[in-house]
Amino acid sequence: MAVYTDITEDDLSGFLKQYDVGTLTSYKGIAEGVENTNFLLHTTKGSYILTLYEKRVDQNDLPFFLGLMQHLADNGLSCPLPLPRADGELLGQLSGRPAAVISFLEGMWLRKPDAHHCREVGKALAAMHVAGEGFGIRRRNALSVGGWRPLWNNSRDRADEVQPGLVTEIAAELDTLEANWPKDLPEGVIHADLFPDNVFFLGDELSGLIDFYFACNDFLAYDVSICLNAWCFEKDGAFNMTKGMALLAGYQSVRPLTAGEIDALPLLARGSALRFFLTRLYDWLMTPPGALVVKKDPLEYLKKLQFHRSVASAAEYGLIQENLPA
Amino acid sequence: MAVYTDITEDDLSGFLKQYDVGTLTSYKGIAEGVENTNFLLHTTKGSYILTLYEKRVDQNDLPFFLGLMQHLADNGLSCPLPLPRADGELLGQLSGRPAAVISFLEGMWLRKPDAHHCREVGKALAAMHVAGEGFGIRRRNALSVGGWRPLWNNSRDRADEVQPGLVTEIAAELDTLEANWPKDLPEGVIHADLFPDNVFFLGDELSGLIDFYFACNDFLAYDVSICLNAWCFEKDGAFNMTKGMALLAGYQSVRPLTAGEIDALPLLARGSALRFFLTRLYDWLMTPPGALVVKKDPLEYLKKLQFHRSVASAAEYGLIQENLPA
Repeated sequence: MAVYTDITEDDLSGFLKQYDVGTLTSYKGIAEGVENTNFLLHTTKGSYILTLYEKRVDQNDLPFFLGLMQHLADNGLSCPLPLPRADGELLGQLSGRPAAVISFLEGMWLRKPDAHHCREVGKALAAMHVAGEGFGIRRRNALSVGGWRPLWNNSRDRADEVQPGLVTEIAAELDTLEANWPKDLPEGVIHADLFPDNVFFLGDELSGLIDFYFACNDFLAYDVSICLNAWCFEKDGAFNMTKGMALLAGYQSVRPLTAGEIDALPLLARGSALRFFLTRLYDWLMTPPGALVVKKDPLEYLKKLQFHRSVASAAEYGLIQENLPA
Repeated sequence: MAVYTDITEDDLSGFLKQYDVGTLTSYKGIAEGVENTNFLLHTTKGSYILTLYEKRVDQNDLPFFLGLMQHLADNGLSCPLPLPRADGELLGQLSGRPAAVISFLEGMWLRKPDAHHCREVGKALAAMHVAGEGFGIRRRNALSVGGWRPLWNNSRDRADEVQPGLVTEIAAELDTLEANWPKDLPEGVIHADLFPDNVFFLGDELSGLIDFYFACNDFLAYDVSICLNAWCFEKDGAFNMTKGMALLAGYQSVRPLTAGEIDALPLLARGSALRFFLTRLYDWLMTPPGALVVKKDPLEYLKKLQFHRSVASAAEYGLIQENLPA
């Protein structure tokens, strides 16, 4: 729920003169996107999303994010497309914020995805990895292995408030991951946040991916491990191997994983579980009591991390090595 | 900013089978409406608002609110229209909440209305008062003179925290208003909350009124006084007589005020200023520190109240008695 910046009708109508979108007929602040302010616009030509980039987003990253969406759409991925202004730029300025107008993608995110949907997500993730090839801008992943210790240092002193023993357990986990993190897996542009609320479906068909504001360059298989964490656990904390199998088979039907990626998957999944644990822990400790934002439970990701620690090979996720592209 | 209740795509698609709205293609929680949860739906037939009524709204009032919108629209007022279900009902149930599907009204509310817009609002308010005639359900105004003392009793002990001297000043004001409140002015259905965010414009043309969830039966001129407070003061607290004149002339061009209403207007405006002062004071004192909701300053309404106390007659609002219907 995020409308951090309001806009006047005059300012917005003036701003839209730079775009080929017709005449504005309504705009509503929408409760999607945690980092930015989003409005759903109706015009005489259709529906659009207007995004105002708030301070939490580094402005230097905006050419990467907007250029990536354009690159991915040009390469056949269904995702929101930033509209060019009359001067050719993708980025304007509105209410003192960098702002972009983006095509509206019909579809709904699934609160209760099933194995079929996991397969579609796997396919779409691989399609994104393929479509991302050749994109000319790079952005390093600040939330990969090198970023975890500084993040942990911000929460460590109070971590045992959340659960006694956390300080010891996380310190050991960090040591292990830093010492064993892979160095030579296939890299590319990853989404890095492909949770169910960032994948739209129309009926059972995947209609597109959204929210590329964590996208960066990293190991492609790390992105797969994020999806395993985000899509394949049940509410009670149990891993659902049917979903894991579907997600991995879907992925491999478009881009087969290498032997090295398959070997690394359990460690990568520990890492991505730790990454979400750490950002949630930080938010948990820093959000003032009484605040109306919904705090996400960091312990959900601790349990996932512990599960992955027990996993001996990717077969336990449902990976079938024989599953080659159709 | 209010999405209190989330809904799944399955539940929503099932719910919509009762309505003649085509197939759902997207739904977004929107940051409008403080009392309820609102979603903007896109379907193959168009755009709609889905409202889930939260606990703050008395379910017994829903037939009044929904019936009123239907009655007003039937009588030519531009306002959202609740859609009937296949079983003829206006109200269904979704995610454990009473829920209604309402037509989507294009238009935008004005962050910076000018005198022209005030004239249009005056006209529309009068048109609503006329269109409301004959509506068969009644709802008393819990936030009129009889409701202020109980509301004040909830805040009085801490009122001087907000500004020293408030306890004395408000107690005297309440005594005056209770002793002198009019008894025999023309009554009807009033909007009771016609602030700028509840009036939509397309260009300079008023496209409709929304949010009838404070509507009730009361003096029509009390509604006029609410609009004077909501539309005709500048950010620095000064009353803008040009806007007042426009609003009152617009109103009278559709429904001329009676002599009794004109005489009562300064007192009614004190009362409506007190009403918004009291609810804002209560929210100000009760909202926990650190909460992310925007608290509205009660003292803005204290200053308006003080202004009205200094007003000798409605001429000071810009009312021109000769202004009769065109």
